[in-house]
This record gives sequence, structure tokens and C-alpha cells, in this order.
Amino acid sequence: MGMKTISQFQSGESVINYFLVKAASMKSASNQNKYLDVTLCDQTGDINAKLWDASEDFEAVFQPNALVKIKGTVTEWQGKLQLKIEKVRAVNDSDDVDIADFVPSAPHDPAFMYQEVMRYADQIVDQEIQSIVRIILEESKEKLLYYPAAQKNHHSIRGGLLFHVMTMLRTGERISEVYPIINKDLLYAGVILHDIAKLDEMAANHLGIVSDYTTEGHLLGHIIQGIKKVERIAKEINASVEKSLILQHMILSHHSIPEFGSPKPPMIPEAELLHYIDMIDSRMYDMEKALSNTENAKLSEKVWSLNNRRVYKTDF
Amino acid sequence: MGMKTISQFQSGESVINYFLVKAASMKSASNQNKYLDVTLCDQTGDINAKLWDASEDFEAVFQPNALVKIKGTVTEWQGKLQLKIEKVRAVNDSDDVDIADFVPSAPHDPAFMYQEVMRYADQIVDQEIQSIVRIILEESKEKLLYYPAAQKNHHSIRGGLLFHVMTMLRTGERISEVYPIINKDLLYAGVILHDIAKLDEMAANHLGIVSDYTTEGHLLGHIIQGIKKVERIAKEINASVEKSLILQHMILSHHSIPEFGSPKPPMIPEAELLHYIDMIDSRMYDMEKALSNTENAKLSEKVWSLNNRRVYKTDF
Amino acid sequence: MGMKTISQFQSGESVINYFLVKAASMKSASNQNKYLDVTLCDQTGDINAKLWDASEDFEAVFQPNALVKIKGTVTEWQGKLQLKIEKVRAVNDSDDVDIADFVPSAPHDPAFMYQEVMRYADQIVDQEIQSIVRIILEESKEKLLYYPAAQKNHHSIRGGLLFHVMTMLRTGERISEVYPIINKDLLYAGVILHDIAKLDEMAANHLGIVSDYTTEGHLLGHIIQGIKKVERIAKEINASVEKSLILQHMILSHHSIPEFGSPKPPMIPEAELLHYIDMIDSRMYDMEKALSNTENAKLSEKVWSLNNRRVYKTDF
Amino acid sequence: MGMKTISQFQSGESVINYFLVKAASMKSASNQNKYLDVTLCDQTGDINAKLWDASEDFEAVFQPNALVKIKGTVTEWQGKLQLKIEKVRAVNDSDDVDIADFVPSAPHDPAFMYQEVMRYADQIVDQEIQSIVRIILEESKEKLLYYPAAQKNHHSIRGGLLFHVMTMLRTGERISEVYPIINKDLLYAGVILHDIAKLDEMAANHLGIVSDYTTEGHLLGHIIQGIKKVERIAKEINASVEKSLILQHMILSHHSIPEFGSPKPPMIPEAELLHYIDMIDSRMYDMEKALSNTENAKLSEKVWSLNNRRVYKTDF
Amino acid sequence: MGMKTISQFQSGESVINYFLVKAASMKSASNQNKYLDVTLCDQTGDINAKLWDASEDFEAVFQPNALVKIKGTVTEWQGKLQLKIEKVRAVNDSDDVDIADFVPSAPHDPAFMYQEVMRYADQIVDQEIQSIVRIILEESKEKLLYYPAAQKNHHSIRGGLLFHVMTMLRTGERISEVYPIINKDLLYAGVILHDIAKLDEMAANHLGIVSDYTTEGHLLGHIIQGIKKVERIAKEINASVEKSLILQHMILSHHSIPEFGSPKPPMIPEAELLHYIDMIDSRMYDMEKALSNTENAKLSEKVWSLNNRRVYKTDF
Amino acid sequence: MGMKTISQFQSGESVINYFLVKAASMKSASNQNKYLDVTLCDQTGDINAKLWDASEDFEAVFQPNALVKIKGTVTEWQGKLQLKIEKVRAVNDSDDVDIADFVPSAPHDPAFMYQEVMRYADQIVDQEIQSIVRIILEESKEKLLYYPAAQKNHHSIRGGLLFHVMTMLRTGERISEVYPIINKDLLYAGVILHDIAKLDEMAANHLGIVSDYTTEGHLLGHIIQGIKKVERIAKEINASVEKSLILQHMILSHHSIPEFGSPKPPMIPEAELLHYIDMIDSRMYDMEKALSNTENAKLSEKVWSLNNRRVYKTDF
Repeated sequence: MGMKTISQFQSGESVINYFLVKAASMKSASNQNKYLDVTLCDQTGDINAKLWDASEDFEAVFQPNALVKIKGTVTEWQGKLQLKIEKVRAVNDSDDVDIADFVPSAPHDPAFMYQEVMRYADQIVDQEIQSIVRIILEESKEKLLYYPAAQKNHHSIRGGLLFHVMTMLRTGERISEVYPIINKDLLYAGVILHDIAKLDEMAANHLGIVSDYTTEGHLLGHIIQGIKKVERIAKEINASVEKSLILQHMILSHHSIPEFGSPKPPMIPEAELLHYIDMIDSRMYDMEKALSNTENAKLSEKVWSLNNRRVYKTDF
Repeated sequence: MGMKTISQFQSGESVINYFLVKAASMKSASNQNKYLDVTLCDQTGDINAKLWDASEDFEAVFQPNALVKIKGTVTEWQGKLQLKIEKVRAVNDSDDVDIADFVPSAPHDPAFMYQEVMRYADQIVDQEIQSIVRIILEESKEKLLYYPAAQKNHHSIRGGLLFHVMTMLRTGERISEVYPIINKDLLYAGVILHDIAKLDEMAANHLGIVSDYTTEGHLLGHIIQGIKKVERIAKEINASVEKSLILQHMILSHHSIPEFGSPKPPMIPEAELLHYIDMIDSRMYDMEKALSNTENAKLSEKVWSLNNRRVYKTDF
Repeated sequence: MGMKTISQFQSGESVINYFLVKAASMKSASNQNKYLDVTLCDQTGDINAKLWDASEDFEAVFQPNALVKIKGTVTEWQGKLQLKIEKVRAVNDSDDVDIADFVPSAPHDPAFMYQEVMRYADQIVDQEIQSIVRIILEESKEKLLYYPAAQKNHHSIRGGLLFHVMTMLRTGERISEVYPIINKDLLYAGVILHDIAKLDEMAANHLGIVSDYTTEGHLLGHIIQGIKKVERIAKEINASVEKSLILQHMILSHHSIPEFGSPKPPMIPEAELLHYIDMIDSRMYDMEKALSNTENAKLSEKVWSLNNRRVYKTDF
Repeated sequence: MGMKTISQFQSGESVINYFLVKAASMKSASNQNKYLDVTLCDQTGDINAKLWDASEDFEAVFQPNALVKIKGTVTEWQGKLQLKIEKVRAVNDSDDVDIADFVPSAPHDPAFMYQEVMRYADQIVDQEIQSIVRIILEESKEKLLYYPAAQKNHHSIRGGLLFHVMTMLRTGERISEVYPIINKDLLYAGVILHDIAKLDEMAANHLGIVSDYTTEGHLLGHIIQGIKKVERIAKEINASVEKSLILQHMILSHHSIPEFGSPKPPMIPEAELLHYIDMIDSRMYDMEKALSNTENAKLSEKVWSLNNRRVYKTDF
Repeated sequence: MGMKTISQFQSGESVINYFLVKAASMKSASNQNKYLDVTLCDQTGDINAKLWDASEDFEAVFQPNALVKIKGTVTEWQGKLQLKIEKVRAVNDSDDVDIADFVPSAPHDPAFMYQEVMRYADQIVDQEIQSIVRIILEESKEKLLYYPAAQKNHHSIRGGLLFHVMTMLRTGERISEVYPIINKDLLYAGVILHDIAKLDEMAANHLGIVSDYTTEGHLLGHIIQGIKKVERIAKEINASVEKSLILQHMILSHHSIPEFGSPKPPMIPEAELLHYIDMIDSRMYDMEKALSNTENAKLSEKVWSLNNRRVYKTDF
Repeated sequence: MGMKTISQFQSGESVINYFLVKAASMKSASNQNKYLDVTLCDQTGDINAKLWDASEDFEAVFQPNALVKIKGTVTEWQGKLQLKIEKVRAVNDSDDVDIADFVPSAPHDPAFMYQEVMRYADQIVDQEIQSIVRIILEESKEKLLYYPAAQKNHHSIRGGLLFHVMTMLRTGERISEVYPIINKDLLYAGVILHDIAKLDEMAANHLGIVSDYTTEGHLLGHIIQGIKKVERIAKEINASVEKSLILQHMILSHHSIPEFGSPKPPMIPEAELLHYIDMIDSRMYDMEKALSNTENAKLSEKVWSLNNRRVYKTDF
């Protein structure tokens, strides 16, 4: 018996470890007895688990997003591994386990990513633009450390928004070297601010899991919310009206076409480039994820966020 | 000779009257002599006019949007009437002519229309909503008295925006009688505010003629500008966040679909109804205009703003 | 024990009442015994019910659209209420129950609605148009009293078509006050006739439930069927060809664009207005229905007939 | 000097012949003298012609669609041939010229084509369907002999509608040999009736030139008009309701999709095939016409009716 | 007991016959015993079958696409026939059964169809074009004899591709009689080659059942693959560059519009006609299939490959 | 008098210089005398020029794309500068002028750009991929040195294709640093090959001006032509089939969606990135060009290649 992660499980062996409860529901077997049907996860994957003849007390333990310690046996059912739960208890402080080890998370430390993004903000030469960006980053810091970039789809992981922004900044910095027409101040500011109001659009818990959109998120959406945020901060610091306007335009146009939520197309080169950097980062993320589950010289399943494309993994 | 309006001109007669200069340019005849090619208008229509062998001094008189007094003879050229200018001078204060008599204008007095709209605003029961609406109407009063609702298309006339809003309020009031689900406070506020930022989106002169869009109009558009305006006023008077949000949502969604500039569809009945009242009023305006130039039992020319439809005038 | 409606049921209590059978099928439990799985409804809602160890005799009782009297106990299964049927019999004449109390129906008495629509028809000044409308209303009277306006979606309730037409007439009457260009004769006639051939397109029973489309409904559709109906009646009474044509055009164009079934767009103001009144009435209906199941300050589920929009219920 | 047709003209020679006037307008030269600017045609093509120093009397001679006898000299202007008119007179009865020799016409004699179509009608086995078709052909005979199939685009030539129908029948007959599922009665009837109401939709003169659409054509269109025609005839002869319905469905669906005017798609094989035979015949016509003006191994100009395609003429 | 085909089964009778295994999976009954849940087919249809209390040995017998001999009893379960398997064994050589009798197949013998297609190829007058076509037909012969034309949808049957091509050639031959503009050499070659690379795009077994697309099929598709095939063969025989190009163009454009996979539209009449013949053949196939399961005077279910249309079966 | 470039011309001065003839045509003045109406250009811009009373001998001198030496006087006509030609002769060898100085050209020396692209090709580690790329670059070298990337739109300048490729390589190199998933061999090869067959699709002269598309360009297009080129070279060097396939897939998918010419979407990350780098480079080019003619704080004219967007030039 050992502390194996889910991806290491083998049929027949006994295991003991900590897991995160993704979902659980009480069901009835054909013999009328009740059992708990549970989905457990750790950072290596998911597994279905059963607690047979479960009393209702266990429903309190198997709350979604709770951490539990479980002892059980790995079985196999119709070709799939399953975990038969034999012992379970809720995790307490003395267990000293970190929730971050049980949810899919960005591959960098949030504090590091925040620092990186701030480093780019500090490179913004224009003092007004820099101030707007820094103030917003600072007032958003707490949420930024765990917010995902989406409910589903690309970067819907803990710290995903920050990871998305940091990677885009790195890409933007390099593309700017090729095109002197690009004003780096605007590009960096646009990248940092383009999705910032996702913090207001979605309600996410500290695991980076989005339960729903907020009312304002439903009725206005993060693009409009982001524009209002820049408007407010720019007014507070008496920034130039034109600069504030340009930043708002970059947020407004970053989805490029009305059908995707941008009533105005990008009308400055930095806004156009922002759109493409955003696309590149989300597409590279989705493709990498799809290929990570694909064998060489094979195609992935259809990927919804890639317009139902299948992706191919080359064999050389 | 008489003070006939353009629609009364007949070939061969001498006329004298005041006209508005819509456009003018110096050209060369085949004998190399210069002449001024002018488009004149009054509220009854347009006519082409020529000032032969024109010295350059006259270019100063024939400025676009200037009023001029002209004596001339009506001629006919390839089936169309034309005016041969014989005498011309700029209008001065002593002429006592009102520019409003020379541009297409709303069929009601601006002051009356403003008062009507205010009367609806006063019927809004919710004090916060009423305040937001009244403050915006008051700070917009000066421009509202002459702004058109568009550069071209429906209600692109002096006072057109106010006329559009007033008529929509009348329609909205009546439809509300049929559907008790409708909150009149929201509907009236939505109607009054939906296009209010056209005052900021377009640059129009006192004749109600739009020269161009403003920079902010180009980069954000009146929907976003209107949302920001409501946000600002609502904050200033400490209005309820939800009420402010709902008003902003009504502005945001009033074009109904992303392709027409609304990233969010109407999500409350009042917003849905606002969209349809807006459509009805613009379509009734365009159809009435198209039919006014059409004979009974005939079809109009294709009307661009009606998606290139031709409209039919019934004969009974 | 009491005569509670479905929306009043509480877990554990005994109930006795009349219900309408929406659907029923014989199934096998895991112990191989047969049971009837039934959906019951009244005007307040639906409930799943079980008749355990059911003999095949009961299949005759639980016919779709039959009324039954049931005694049973309300139970709870996986968070949902269920009815355990203990006694059941078919309804007979002596029960004196009215089917109309068990199906979703228009909120007005059919006879009253028919009278209202007739009242509008009588206001049509043009005698030929009035005759066409009256003849069609009279020959359609029997079906109009119970037909819904659709198989699913808006106004798919008993008497729904009549309710839809009556409400549109009320709206049309009021909007006509604002736009003098509108010929009320045409508008009223257009409203009354626009969907009249739904009586021929769909096969509905007296409960206002549509089983299917008719063959002609499938192959031509109510728009074409309506045109042919007007053509026939107009010929029979020797009405003016132009008037008949205009009414046919209003039917043809009332969906506004080809993609929604109108090969010609509205080409007279009354046809254009008809389209918008139709949209307003269906949208107000769908939104009211969606909001009736929604808590304050919450969003509804996605509503298919509203293009999958969610609707928000304001909290003030 | 000789009776050359326009395609035979060479610069510098004197010609005398009959021509059709397509268009003419009085203009002023830079010396202020008036001249008539004329477009003449015969079946071989068009040429621009000038009558210098023309008195207004000549305007009466050069009426559109008039036949004239002209003596003149072929000149060349900026690389194009032109005709300098020296003598002109209107054609009178003694000239014995046939208008049909001056307009683009179908390549078969109208009487022959009508006979051919009738021959197919006679092959319809079902007596009711045959009667409907024959009655309509007979009452349409006079117009069918000269009507084009369109105002512009494919088969917009004298007798074009008949030519279109005859060719489609030949194609349909042959395809039916391959697919036994096809009911020839329905296919022949569908082909003959699908565009028959173009006779009512468009107003054409005896030259097969369409001046405009009729009012009913504008407001309903030939698809609806054709349906009503079949409905009327079928009722008159007491034909089976289902057969009438199927013929109406074939007319309704022959454009295949709503965007092109068919609210219902073809729902029987004969209707589906009708659509494709219609497409094939119009496309073959347009391509043949485009290629007739194209050199080997070259591409044609863009052809509007072929969705702006250019067509290639092979070199082998 | 008899050798009845599936469509002849009646509840209660004993049967013995050969069947093809379409799918099989081991399941657990509520009493925990295992059983095999099997789908069997022959050319007359499908039936669900159960092997109760099955040992795992039977899984080897019930491989997908295997032929088995079964003795069993026809039962009925919830209104559907089912087969209770009593005895089963794998088929061996001595059984002398032909797989072709158990899968849906083209209605002609593959060898005959291949010969027919070759007969058309031999009618191609141009020697270079004929050679290209013949070489490709010869090197494709083995696969052509069983390949379907698609994984699902039209002609997804054994020998379906050859059947599709043969029928299209017959149609093409006949339409060419009507349109002299058509070069038969090109048309026949285009028909034979248009889908030829489906042999490379899909991986099908000898039953004509496609398991998946090949990698090249996924990444390039049969249109591109077909172009490369023609290019290669034409080069090998030193054929005229223009002829090779024209054949490639026909393959490239045969889906007509970019949305369906043709980046270039047909630019020669033969390519345009090829597209329509392809459409006709697939639509006639799908409609015939849909109608074969439909009663007279009824509509079929919605057919996915016909854009979800329902098809009507006439009653005369 | 001096050797001023066109952008330096001022009204009234005498000039002498070399110019490129873009277009010229003989016209008639109103006094019937002939004159040549000419458009001249150098790298700084265009100017209209007139040679009055021109004999036909001059037509030979003013051939499109010819270099001429001209002496003349700058005049002004209706607000625009014009050149009155006083002396003109064709350029001969002794003039020692370089055509490259008179046409819009890439901002780098073609030889340098070719060398740069080759430097990236040399960095491809995989020897087969490198060989394919190098062979194609070498056989394309002569044309690459002057071919534009398009007939109109982005990079339609001398050497534009090479400039486009070189800049994309620089961008691709930098983005690869951020995304380790990217195989640089594939990305570099894809960038170099994606548009290589534009050399075969368009017919351009040594000035980099495209007169038309080639026949193969019209009938297949550069995407298909590029695929065939890679197929041929890969076969010649016996390269791995999979590698050849992947390169072909990158060419095929680089327009991303069928509507823009790619029947298959990008299915590997390098193909997806290639698409976006292509978009970025063309958009940055078009925006830079549009802004170069725009004042600060103003919007450009509508730019066709940017989907009719206007671009804004910031003022800070």
C-alpha cells in the first residue's frame, strides 16, 4: 500500500492518500441499499469511487471541493479503474496538505507570476499609463493569485488568468522587437488589462473553480466592466483623456469582431496585435493540453474549444 | 418674380429668395472660363445652380452651410430644372431669416419636444432612476435641441434625436398598457438614454448636420459612451448599483445582436421592448419618407436604410 | 388529505384529486415486476407518479390526455417529489370536471377573446377587407376557440392563437395612435390573418395540444396556406384584387426575412409594423413565462425560444 | 456599301441596313450643338452611333425598341468602332423586316418549342396532372411564345422561358431513365410549372424585353403566384387535393433554400431533382454564353450571374 | 424452426441462421450475473440479442464483424423483438457463407460495376486523358471492389463508391446529349476521378465498413489527395500539362464552394455539371433510402444527410 | 530647376528628372486636338502629367513600366499639382538609372533578405526538412528577388514576398522562445513554404508588378500549387512521407478556415502559429502603411485590406 497518485493506480492494489472531492451523490443500488457515487481527483487525474452501504453522515464529508483522506482498493469495472472506499475522513489542519496540490493549477507560483507581470508594468515609460496599470494590478492582486481565465476552456485552472497574462507579455515583448511601429507601453498595458474584469465577471473560489457568472458579468460582460474600471481609475488620477480612451479601445476591440463580443474592431496596431497574441496564447494552451493526452502519430479527440478540431501529434 | 420655394420653381421664370448652400465648387468650362457649380436647398428640396464666369471672390460667399440671397432665372437642362444665378450676396443680420427654415428639421418645435420628454421623465416613480435621467437630460439639453439621430439614415434631421426619443416614449407608454410585466420606469429611462451618447459620438453643427464622428465615437461608439455616462451619474448621486446596472444593460443590448453592436442580448423584458420600439420608430420614419416621394399604386426606389427594399404605396 | 394541486404537494402527505395524464409507459423493475411510470399534470405543474405491480388493465386507464382521479402518497426521491399511486379510476361524466382546468390555457375565456377579436374586425372601415376578415373568422371559429399558436414555444397553450391575436390587436391599436401613416384597416386585418392558417398547418386536439403538422402544413406551411385562404375568400366575394394582394403580402412577409420563412420583406408600413407587433407579443409571452419561474435578482435557465438567452428578474 | 450586320463592320466603310434602337439621348457637344447619342443593335451585337447636329425631330424616330433604316460610315474612336449616321428613317410595313431578327432570341422557333413542351405534357399519364398542366400551358400560350425567363441573367432572351423549360424537360427525361424512383408525371409537370408565373411576375413586351416587375410580382413573386395558379386550376377541374398539393410543393421548393426564395426545401425526390435540373440548365446557359466571348486557353471576364466567377475555355 | 432472415422473425418462434456481429459487450444484470449484449445483422436489418449467464469465452466469438451461427428464440421486450441466444458458434470455411450476404451492399455485382466504369473510360477519345483514368482505375481496382463512398451518409455501403461513380456516369452520359457544350472526355474523367482518393482518405475493411480516416485523410483530405494522384500519373505518362491541370481543377472544385471543401468554384462547364451530378446521385440515394422506410402519404423521420429534412411519400 | 522627386514638387517651378510611366492614354481636348494623359511615379509618389498636342509617335515612348526623362513645369489644377511635359525622351543605357529606384520596394536589399531567409533554413535541424526547404528556395531564387506577395493589398511591392517571409521568420523565432511545444524546424519550413507558390500563381514582371494570375493560379491557386511542389521535391529526395505530409498540411491550412481557402484547419501547433504569424505580419504592414499617410490624433481613410476599417494614429 502506498501514497500513489491517481495516475499510478493499478487494479487490485490497496491505496491510501489525500484526494479532492469533485462531485458526490447518494444513489440506490438495485438491492435498495444506498451508496455514495463519488468523483475524486488529484493533479494527475480523476477516478470514480464508491462507498457502499453509505449512511447519510458521509454526505457531509463528501462535499464538493473538500479534501478527504481515503483508504481503499483499486478495482476494475468494464475496462475502467474504480476505487472501492474502505475508510474515509475529512482532512484537518494537522494533515498539512495544500489544496494547490489537488487542483489543476498554472505551472508557476502565483507570487512569481504576479511579480513578473508587475515587472512588465514597471517597464511602461508613460507615467499615466503605468499608474493606471499598477493601480489596477494592486487592487486586483488578491484575486489574481488564484483566478482562472475562464469557467471552461483555455486557462480554466487555478492562477490561469495570471499565467495567461504573463505568457502574453513575454510574447508581446518579443514581437515588439520585430515591429518598431508597436508602442510597448500600450501593448503591455493592453495585455495586462484586456481580461482584468474577468475577476468581476465570474465568481470563483480559492481553488480557481468558477461556480457561475456574477449578475454584472451576465448583464454587461468583462469587456464592458474592464472599460468602466479603466475609466474610473484614469479619472481618479487625472490621466490624459486620450490615453484612457486608447486603453478602453484596446479592451473593447480585443475579440476583434462583433460576433465574438467586440463592437469595434482594433483601430490601432497595438490593439490588433493584442488580439493575435491573445489568440496565440489560448490556442497554444489548448493544443498543448490536447496533445498531452495523445499518442505519437495519432489524432486527439475533437476539442470543443478548438472549434471541434482534432489535433495531430507528429512522430518525429 | 416671387419668393418661391424650390419645389415651386418653373422653367423660365425669374426668382429671388434666400437659400442654404449645401455644396459649391469652382470648375472650368470647355472655353476655359471658370464657373461656380452650386447646390442650393431650402426645406422643400435641392436645386443645382450655376454662377458663370465667377471670380474667386464668390468662393467666400458660397461656403457650405451659409445662407445666401439669390436672384436668378430658372432654366432646364436635360430634363432637370437649374438655376442661373444673376445676383448673390451673403445674408446678414438685417435679413432676419432663420436657419431652421432651410434645413430638414423635426416636425415639432425642439423646446416642445424637450418638454415632452421631460414630462415622461417626471413620471418615473423610482427617485434614483428619475434623477439619473433628469440629470442627463439637463446636461444634454443644449445639444439635444438640434442634434440629429444619425449622420445619414433615419432621423438625420435637425432635432431628430429628440423627435425619435419623444415618439418612442409615446409608443412605449401605449404598449405598456398591454403588457403589465413592463416596468414603465425602466422603459422610459431606457428610451431616453438609449441613444443619448450620440451627442458625444458625432460632431454636429447647429443645423443638425453631422460632419464626422468624434474620436471617442470612432473608438468606442455611443453604446459604450452611454454606459459610461450612466455609470458616472449614478455614482455621483449614489444610486443603487443594481439600478445603474440595469440601465447600462438596456443601453448595451438595445441593438439586440452582436452583429449590430450589442455584445449582450436584452435580458429583461423592458430591454427587449426597447429594442423593438426603436426598430418600429426608425422603420416608420424611413417608410413614411420613402412613400412621401412615391405615387399611389407604385413602388419607391430601393431604400438603402430599409435593406434596399422598395416600398409600395397602396391605392385605397 | 386534501384536494391539493400539484404545486401544493408536500412530502409525506396523502392526497386525492383529479389529474391529466400527459404520458405513461409500462416498465420492469429490477425484480422483474411491472410498474406504470406516469407523468401527471394539472394547471400548476407536473409530477412523476408510479403505480407499482401494475396489471396491464391499467394501461387503458392511463391514456395520454385522459383525466383520472387518483389517491396516493407524496414521496421524495433524490430530491424530487413523486406520487405513489394507491387508487386510480378514469373520470366519468358525473365527476363534472372540466378539462380546461388541467391544461395550460390562455388567461381569458375563449368566447370572450373571440368576441374581442370580432370587435376589432368590426372596426375595419373598408367593407371588402372587413368581409374577408369576418368570413375567415367565422369559418375558423370552432378551432380558434382551442387552438394553440404553436406546437412548442410561445403561446403553445389552449386558446393560445386567439390570445396571441387579441393581444396583438390591442398593441396594434395603440401604436396606430402614434403613427398616422398606419392604415388601421390593414393592420387589424393583417394581425387577424397572419397566423390564421396555423389552424390548417397543425393538427391539434381540443386540449390545444398539437400532435403533429398536417401534410399540407409540412409541404407548404401556414404562410402559403394563409395566402391561399385569402385568395379564395376574396374571389368568392369579388373583393378588389389590390386589397386581396395587400393582405396576402402582409401574410407572406410577416416573418420579415427569407431565413424565417418570408420570401418577400414587408413592403408597406402596416406589414412592417405587423412583424414587430408579432415579435413583441411572442417575446413578452416567453419572457413573462421564464421570469415566473425565476427568483428576484436571479437569472432564469437558458430559454430555447429566446435564442438560448437567460432572462434576469430585477429586484426592485 | 452593303447590308452588313454589326459584327461585320470595318472601319472606314459605308453601310446601309436595318437596326433596332436600344437607347438614344440628345446631348450637347462642347460647341453647344446638339447631337443624338444612340445605341443600335442587331442579333450580332451592339454599336454606338452619333447623329451630329440633330434637330429634335429625330428624337421621335429614335425611340427605344424602334426599328430604323440607317445609312452611315463606320469610324473608329479610341480603339472602338462607331457609326456616323448620315441618313435615317423609321421602318414601315413595306420594309418587311421581322423584329425577331434584331433581338437576342432563343435558338429555336417558339412554335416548335411550345409543341415540344406540349409533347411532354401529353406523356403525363395521370389525367388530373396532365389536365392541370395542359390548361395552364394553353392559357399561357400567347405570352409563352415571347417571354424571357428573366429580366437579366440566364435566358433573358425572347422565348427564353420556353427554351429553358424545353431543355429542362429533355434533361429530366434522360435523368429519369437512371433513377427509377422518379415519377415522370410529377417531374414533367414540375418542370413545366416551376417558372410559369414569371409570365405574371414580369411585364415584358413582344421583343422579350422586361421593363419591370408587376405589382403582384413585387409583392408576392412568381413562386407564390404559381402556387395560386395551380390551386385555382386544380379546383376548377376538381383534381385530387394531394396531387394539387404536390405540384404546389414542387413550385414552392424549387429554389431549394429560404435564402433563395423557397421557404420549404424539396421533400420529394422529384422536387429535389427539379431544383438541380433548373440549376444545370441556367448554369450551362450562362457558361456557354460567357465562353462564346472568350478565346481558347483564356479566362472570361467575371460573370455576375455565376457569382462573379471567371470561366475558362480549354484549348483542346 | 427455419433459416429466416431478421426481417421475417416473429415473436415466439425458434430460429437458426448465420448472422454478422455488429457489436457486443459483456454486461452485469442486477443479480450480478454477466450476460452478453449483442447486435446482430443481416442484409434485412438489425436485432438485439442476449446471451445470458455468458462465460468470458464467448467474448472471443462475438468479435465485431465476425460471422456466427446462432440458434435461439425470438422474444419481445417493450414492444421490440429480441433474440435469446441458445447456441452459438463461429463460422468456419465449411459453412460456405459469403460475408457479402450480411452487410448492406450496392445492388450490383462489384465486378460488373467495375466493368461498366471501365467501359465509360474506354469511350474517352483523348488518349492522354484516357490513360490517366485507366491507370488510376487499374491501380485502384482491388479497393474499388468493396470501398464505400463514405463513413456514414450516402453510399456508405459495400461497393458504394463504385456504385456512385457508375450511376453518375450514366447520368452524365445522358445530360451530355442535351448540352453539346459538354466535353464528354472531361466529364467521364471527372466523374471517375472526383472521389477516387476516398480510397486513401478512409481506412475500410473488406466489408466496406470504415473504421476511421487515415492520417493523410485527416490532414489533407480526398480532394487534395486526388489532385496529387492525377499530378503523379500525368507526369509519369508525360501527359499534356493543361489536361492534367483541368482534371485536377475538376477534382478541386467538385464541392462547389469553400465551405464544403472546394477553395475554387467550377470554372469549366464540365466541372459545374460534375458537381450537380454528384449532388443528384447522393440526394436520390438518400431520398430513396428514407422513403423505403416510410409509408404512403406519410413523412419520414428527419434525415441528417438531407439537412434534417423529412421526406414525403406520395400516395398515387 | 532641379532633380526633385515628386513629393518635393511645388507649383510653378521647372523640373527635370527620370520617372516611371504607370499609365498613359491619348485623349482629345474640346478643341479636338490630341494630348497624352500620363501618370508618372517615382518612389515618393504619383503625379498626373499632360503632353499637349501630342503626335502619335509619343505613344511609343509612354509605354507602361517604361522609364522616361522629362523636363516640364509644375502647375496646379483644381487644388492638385500637375506636370506640363515640355520635353521627353526614353531612357537608354547611358542614363545609368535603376528601375528599383522608381517602384515601391521592400525596405531591404533582396540579396540580403534572401540570405537571411537562407540563414533560417540552415537552422533547420532535420536534414530532410532542411533539404526540401533549401531546394525550393534555390530553384525559386531568381523570382524571389523581385516577386511581390500579392497583386494588391499587403506586401504588393517589389521583393514583397521575400520581405514578408523574412519578417515572419523573425517573429516566429521569437514566439518559439515562449512556447516550447513549437518545433522550430516545422515552423521555419512552414513560414518559408506557405506562400512560395505565389511565384507560380501570379505573373509578375521584374518591377514586382503583377499583370494577372496564371492559368494554373486561377484554376488551382497557390495553396494547391505549393502542396504539389513539396510533394514533388520530397519524392525526389526520398524524404519521409510523414514529414512531407506535415509540410503540405501547413501550407493547406495556413488560411485557417474554408471561407479563406483552407479546406482543413491547422491541426498541429506549428500550423496554427503559422497562421497567426501570417496575419500579424500582413496586418502590421497594412496598418503601418495606412498610418504613414495619417496625421496625429486623426483617423485614416477606410482601408479595404483591413476589412474597411479606419485606423487611428495616437497623439502621444
